[in-house]
Amino acid sequence: MITLVNGIETDQISVADRGFQYGDGLFETIAVYHGTPLLWTGHIQRLRSGCERLQLDMPDEALLLREVVRVVGDAPRAVVKITVTHGPAGRGYARVPWSPPTRVVSARHWPNTPALHARDGVAVRWCQTTVARSPRLAGIKHLNRLAQVMARAEWQADYAEGLMCDEAGFVIEGTMSNVFAVFGDTVITPDLSQSGVAGVMRAEVLRAAQSCGLPWREDWITPAVLETADELFLTNSIIGVWPVRTLANRSYTIGQATHTIQTTIEAAQCFAPAA
Amino acid sequence: MITLVNGIETDQISVADRGFQYGDGLFETIAVYHGTPLLWTGHIQRLRSGCERLQLDMPDEALLLREVVRVVGDAPRAVVKITVTHGPAGRGYARVPWSPPTRVVSARHWPNTPALHARDGVAVRWCQTTVARSPRLAGIKHLNRLAQVMARAEWQADYAEGLMCDEAGFVIEGTMSNVFAVFGDTVITPDLSQSGVAGVMRAEVLRAAQSCGLPWREDWITPAVLETADELFLTNSIIGVWPVRTLANRSYTIGQATHTIQTTIEAAQCFAPAA
Repeated sequence: MITLVNGIETDQISVADRGFQYGDGLFETIAVYHGTPLLWTGHIQRLRSGCERLQLDMPDEALLLREVVRVVGDAPRAVVKITVTHGPAGRGYARVPWSPPTRVVSARHWPNTPALHARDGVAVRWCQTTVARSPRLAGIKHLNRLAQVMARAEWQADYAEGLMCDEAGFVIEGTMSNVFAVFGDTVITPDLSQSGVAGVMRAEVLRAAQSCGLPWREDWITPAVLETADELFLTNSIIGVWPVRTLANRSYTIGQATHTIQTTIEAAQCFAPAA
Repeated sequence: MITLVNGIETDQISVADRGFQYGDGLFETIAVYHGTPLLWTGHIQRLRSGCERLQLDMPDEALLLREVVRVVGDAPRAVVKITVTHGPAGRGYARVPWSPPTRVVSARHWPNTPALHARDGVAVRWCQTTVARSPRLAGIKHLNRLAQVMARAEWQADYAEGLMCDEAGFVIEGTMSNVFAVFGDTVITPDLSQSGVAGVMRAEVLRAAQSCGLPWREDWITPAVLETADELFLTNSIIGVWPVRTLANRSYTIGQATHTIQTTIEAAQCFAPAA
């Protein structure tokens, strides 16, 4: 599989790129199934909203789609990453208005995460590393991901995911996923107005809850309260929905709400099923 | 002037580099004056401390020094940037232990910031963008600099620098400098245990205050209190000491403490004088 930088087949960028210098850019990670990028509209919407926030020129959507299809080739399943940065520039934090953005589209083989995760659930832990509150950057998927990297470095292979809180002690998200807690039949997911990444699959899950008549809300929730949920699950565009089997010293069963959401997401074909 | 990537003359890196993907790395910006990198020990110490924090292999100091001298060539003054990242890796936040780090050493021409800034002082403003609290990343100079970029984008050329607060409302730093306030003869600079970059020149200034018998401390300080200071000044490794002439609606004179610090810093030859 190939990588395109501004439409040209190469895997090299300039060290002067502001993505490398400061993380001054955005990315999307997209599941592509038999040539079709899943949840494409959601990814494009979040990228556009991120571009507005970072004062970046949004790449042409049709061009992006052509490049996504091109880098995947004939692979039945692939993960495509789109990165858009403020491009190469001189020294200093000030952006140069006439500097052209950098657009990177690259494909990776589908990850070999166990196919049973979605069926049997996963073991999850708490991370010590916090997600920083930063309202101007909250929700978008920017390139400043050191907190997630530090959190992920807290464990090896013994857990599928770690959950992160903000400095005030509220649950925000997993290192690479959004988290949902079910109390009775009510679905609650953390408020992301101050920090965190508003996942495209997260929005899809909330739509699924709505369409299935499950009450849902975004809220501030502490680890102690989250642990008392009846069901817990994690989502992102690649994994779909992973039920949580264990967190800290508690065990969870895969309940009706999680099952309903999973089934709805799969039926909507916004998820590339495991091999 | 040239750029070296892992000792090889090129200005290209892989898009898979974790510096580009996540900002998983560090940098130092160093003034080089007639072939001598100034405050070298301080820069190396901060880089080493950052490497420990990010679980990065610290590059060999002698090798770095040779590369710094090489990229500068015979330029009388230059700015050298050293960047060290966790290197190219596959998808996902988890670091791969055997992945070799990437080391970039590049030189830039000396900036043409007005030489009069150090003598006459500068106009400074407050930024709306906050510095996020993140104790695990506080103090080190990592590559996640989007907050500084967003803050710098709040104004054009009408100010020399903008000051940033954390979410709790305490002053932390300038976008590219550390800030000092003088009350009477006491020098106060923000506590950086929760966020911010602990500048190499900042440490030098505190040493200068100590050696000159000026009382000093790190403290939490609000914008309202900072504005009532008798003197204000900004520091970094390239600009040295810039007195603040105006902030918000207040004007400041360049007082005795600022003058003493400036003179001491210049005498210690840890600063490349303006042309």
